Amino acid sequence: MLLDSIHSPTDLKRLSTSELPQLAQEIRQFLIEKLSVTGGHLAPNLGVVELTLAMHYLYDSPTDKFLFDVGHQAYVHKMLTGRMDRFDTLRQKDGLCGFVKRAESEHDVWEAGHSSTSLSGAMGMALARDMQGRSNKVIAVIGDGALTGGMALEALNHIGHEKRKLTVVLNDNEMSIAPNVGALHNYLGKVRSDKTYRKAKDEFEWLLRKVPAIGGKLAKTAERLKDSLKYLVVPGILFEEFGLKYLGPVDGHDTEKLIEAFRQADKCEGPVLVHILTVKGKGYSPAEADSHKWHGITGSYKIESGQVLKPVGPPMYTEVFGNALIELAEKDERIVAITPAMPGGSGLLGFAQRFPGRMIDVGIAEQHAATMSAALAMEGMKPVYAVYSTFLQRAYDQVVHDICRHNANVIFAIDRAGFVGGDGETHQGVYDIAYLRHIPNLVLMMPKDENELRRMMATAVAYGDGPIAIRYPREQGRGVAMDEELAPIPIGSWEVVRDGDYAAILAIGPMVHVAEEAAELLKREGLNVRVVNARFVKPLDAAMLAQLAKERLPMLVLEETAVAGGLGSAILEHYAQQGLKPTVQLAGVPDRFIEHATIKEQRAEVGLTAEEAAKHLRSFALLKRQRQTAN
Amino acid sequence: MLLDSIHSPTDLKRLSTSELPQLAQEIRQFLIEKLSVTGGHLAPNLGVVELTLAMHYLYDSPTDKFLFDVGHQAYVHKMLTGRMDRFDTLRQKDGLCGFVKRAESEHDVWEAGHSSTSLSGAMGMALARDMQGRSNKVIAVIGDGALTGGMALEALNHIGHEKRKLTVVLNDNEMSIAPNVGALHNYLGKVRSDKTYRKAKDEFEWLLRKVPAIGGKLAKTAERLKDSLKYLVVPGILFEEFGLKYLGPVDGHDTEKLIEAFRQADKCEGPVLVHILTVKGKGYSPAEADSHKWHGITGSYKIESGQVLKPVGPPMYTEVFGNALIELAEKDERIVAITPAMPGGSGLLGFAQRFPGRMIDVGIAEQHAATMSAALAMEGMKPVYAVYSTFLQRAYDQVVHDICRHNANVIFAIDRAGFVGGDGETHQGVYDIAYLRHIPNLVLMMPKDENELRRMMATAVAYGDGPIAIRYPREQGRGVAMDEELAPIPIGSWEVVRDGDYAAILAIGPMVHVAEEAAELLKREGLNVRVVNARFVKPLDAAMLAQLAKERLPMLVLEETAVAGGLGSAILEHYAQQGLKPTVQLAGVPDRFIEHATIKEQRAEVGLTAEEAAKHLRSFALLKRQRQTAN
Repeated sequence: MLLDSIHSPTDLKRLSTSELPQLAQEIRQFLIEKLSVTGGHLAPNLGVVELTLAMHYLYDSPTDKFLFDVGHQAYVHKMLTGRMDRFDTLRQKDGLCGFVKRAESEHDVWEAGHSSTSLSGAMGMALARDMQGRSNKVIAVIGDGALTGGMALEALNHIGHEKRKLTVVLNDNEMSIAPNVGALHNYLGKVRSDKTYRKAKDEFEWLLRKVPAIGGKLAKTAERLKDSLKYLVVPGILFEEFGLKYLGPVDGHDTEKLIEAFRQADKCEGPVLVHILTVKGKGYSPAEADSHKWHGITGSYKIESGQVLKPVGPPMYTEVFGNALIELAEKDERIVAITPAMPGGSGLLGFAQRFPGRMIDVGIAEQHAATMSAALAMEGMKPVYAVYSTFLQRAYDQVVHDICRHNANVIFAIDRAGFVGGDGETHQGVYDIAYLRHIPNLVLMMPKDENELRRMMATAVAYGDGPIAIRYPREQGRGVAMDEELAPIPIGSWEVVRDGDYAAILAIGPMVHVAEEAAELLKREGLNVRVVNARFVKPLDAAMLAQLAKERLPMLVLEETAVAGGLGSAILEHYAQQGLKPTVQLAGVPDRFIEHATIKEQRAEVGLTAEEAAKHLRSFALLKRQRQTAN
Repeated sequence: MLLDSIHSPTDLKRLSTSELPQLAQEIRQFLIEKLSVTGGHLAPNLGVVELTLAMHYLYDSPTDKFLFDVGHQAYVHKMLTGRMDRFDTLRQKDGLCGFVKRAESEHDVWEAGHSSTSLSGAMGMALARDMQGRSNKVIAVIGDGALTGGMALEALNHIGHEKRKLTVVLNDNEMSIAPNVGALHNYLGKVRSDKTYRKAKDEFEWLLRKVPAIGGKLAKTAERLKDSLKYLVVPGILFEEFGLKYLGPVDGHDTEKLIEAFRQADKCEGPVLVHILTVKGKGYSPAEADSHKWHGITGSYKIESGQVLKPVGPPMYTEVFGNALIELAEKDERIVAITPAMPGGSGLLGFAQRFPGRMIDVGIAEQHAATMSAALAMEGMKPVYAVYSTFLQRAYDQVVHDICRHNANVIFAIDRAGFVGGDGETHQGVYDIAYLRHIPNLVLMMPKDENELRRMMATAVAYGDGPIAIRYPREQGRGVAMDEELAPIPIGSWEVVRDGDYAAILAIGPMVHVAEEAAELLKREGLNVRVVNARFVKPLDAAMLAQLAKERLPMLVLEETAVAGGLGSAILEHYAQQGLKPTVQLAGVPDRFIEHATIKEQRAEVGLTAEEAAKHLRSFALLKRQRQTAN
């Protein structure tokens, strides 16, 4: 095993280039085996084995800077930089991170989890290098999907203008997480197939070679045109127009060719784009056959059959959302679904099959998706913008400026709200309440179970007074009975799910059930706790809040979201505006980023458990006694 | 006067095309005169007179949809749609809005104030039209500057892919607000000059015409290549590669040519980009000579001389920022300034002159600017990202994911925080506290006067533990004395600017002075109010908050920002976490969008005045009496 001798990039450089294919083979075997237990982003990493080998073979990390866009395709990089022995802990609490992680290694210089950041990162690193008079290389690796993200195009525009020396590796595997859409994708297809360009180029060149033999003015013109021709018909003209030197396309599974391309790139003065063609899932036939499914595997799988072990039990919220949307769309033809490149992750594959003409996948373009939704709504459609909580961050300005300021009837389906587990800190959906609830005109809600999710969707479709958002967690439903008729819920109405007169817990989403468990624990101690499903974050249920204050019930707000600016914060503001001062305590996500672990572990880490909630509530008794003593 | 007869687009259509140049002349005269009193976006509107005439002459608004990107170049559109008589009230309270405004007219279908949204809007409107089986036209007008915004490129990518019928008018005036940067700009320059493309194209065509006469295989190849050639060497190949039909460049000041170009565009099946060349400020020589200065004029000007009347008194905060940055940069060569196309508006022209190599203008690219800043900081530079509060909204995700999660030493200089006056609701800087303060690792502060701004900048430069932000208002300083030595302020320290034992006002920025006035009013009534400059929004001054609670002083938080998620909200959270319940009342911007008016009027509208603050404080006496009675 060559792999056993590789503990650092230095070890890799001792091999001859002819040994690299064998090493690539061993790396693939290693990843297929390890990930069969832990899960992880198998297909993207199998696609970049040779690329990563070539980069570490030729360049000197960390002096030379490698920036992996999205950062989930850095497993091979981690293996080559001394972290092979940690793959059994991949994506687990205190284990190896599934993304690039600066705290893990000096070789990890650029963290990400959201797409399309690597070009901006590379531009900044190249600028700093030049300003400080250093001469290191800067290499960004970006997929064809991530390249369509607006900020990557902003960066490309700046890179082409500044002309700093840096290399963009365009890892073209004809897809991001979903099949790619967009004009750039079509363009790359043409470049790959070569039909338009290569043939025209060859024929022009042939013609120009022949013409001079004829002599005269024709010959002179032909001679002069040779340069123009070269400029006009290179395959990567779009990138050349953007100001980058284009090299490629290169076979991304041939290390020697990759090394040669990088050497060529290094000889150029300004920015270079090296276009490489790779196969996602390369070397593992189940992943090659269905690279969408194998993009990220959350559980274990059987290596031989490629069978992925799925959790048993109720469907995921995502799936419930997708099915309910079909149900609603059958009755209301104004409904259209919008996704920024996440049709599968957002549970929309069934919808797309049933209503292909009403499904709009815009590619990785969260901003465009939001603003386009506003326009659809203004023209009488009912757009449902399905997006992960963490990715909606990209469209914050569009939500403010284009959707809410226009008071457009856009429905937000905010998936993966709360902790997300193994994806860790870059993906936590714990800020959406804080970044949404201060925006005028928006209604924001969260269901306690999957049936309430369906009712909220009916509520959103029936509502017609402006934007309305439903956030739901990345987990399975509760297995509750599903209503046949989806009755809308009055806007701003909370519900008491358990009565009690000792104290109240105001909770949302999965925390409602944590609250119920806590109430159960305290019942054994003779304390009856009221549990309120505070399902509307905006507007709040003012009547119920008034009632709670009137009853002088001390309250604990329980939410799986940042405490700063969260639901509890909204409740405090409300009482302050009313001139009321009931006891309100806050339990939620503290002011720091929470790393990868299981969702259960993440909740435990920040104290969002029944035991901790019960402890909080017990302290109310202490408060009461203190107050009685004081009086 | 032709202009007197134009009360609607229908009136316009009665004119012959030969009368349009005269009408254009009258429109220009009208704008130059009216704006000389009210101020406004003169230069951009002078640039689109013929364009707007051509659009309304040929198309049927509002059935056909006009989307003006940014929306500040719609004055001519407003004139032609029955609003000529309201120009005396331009940008004034209850007057004509300086941007497109749906509430004003059925012809205003797409509001904006932030750039680069029109293509997404057009895409949504085209989709809705097709889904509903309508056949109206959709025309987006976008400047060459706005086109480099990431979301516009996302939209272009989607438009080129979907192939819906719509027209993009690229209004190319070689600049946005500042001179344009970016590869796309350079590209357009080449197209305009025609040197590379037109000449090569002509020569190729000449060659291919000649060759067939020779006969044989050469002739056949030449024949076949004609189509490829057309495809390969049209001037707008970049747009053609994106999947749009390119027409142009067209003289944007020739109505007949514009109408002809639109007619051609209408004949095409899919999306078309019409590239028009205009001169910003056209027809008014001072504006043609300095279109940056004349992009937006906030006050009145003398028509003959072009002299703009400037406010007298202390310098604007913007200017103080720019000068202090130069001062600090003299001593610390790690400081670099980053602007997304706002070098002038952000007060950086002096810095750019003094340190051209340390000034990075990325074009309209707020996201890229933020993430690039993170990379610069990680490589040892001290990036100062100067940006308006409202535009930083575009980079919210990058602030979370790339800057704060990386804990990168980026300094944010957030200008125009609070109300902005005549620009109105699209530009209000009242959300930054709400969208920033929940992000881990960030320090957020606001100075009470221009000297404190300078000290805060010194504080930010000296700080090295992560991201730090200073927000400051769009107004003149207080005229205070400036310290020679810029002593840093301890992080998280507030200051008592006036003592008192009746109640306390916790205020930030300009509200500190409103608080002082309120205290002065109450002093006459024998009530001594303490005024605290709560200059750190994050972290709060925990010691001072504890002291205030201990003294049982009722508190009023005064902030020119959204109450939801604002400073007051942070203070309430803090006390709740501490288990304390002092009386805290909140005064700030309520949960709705605030329209254009003067800043003073906007403050009055939401009750951010000394009189209203004094009223609030008087109610504390009532509260106290109630409490005493209750006990």
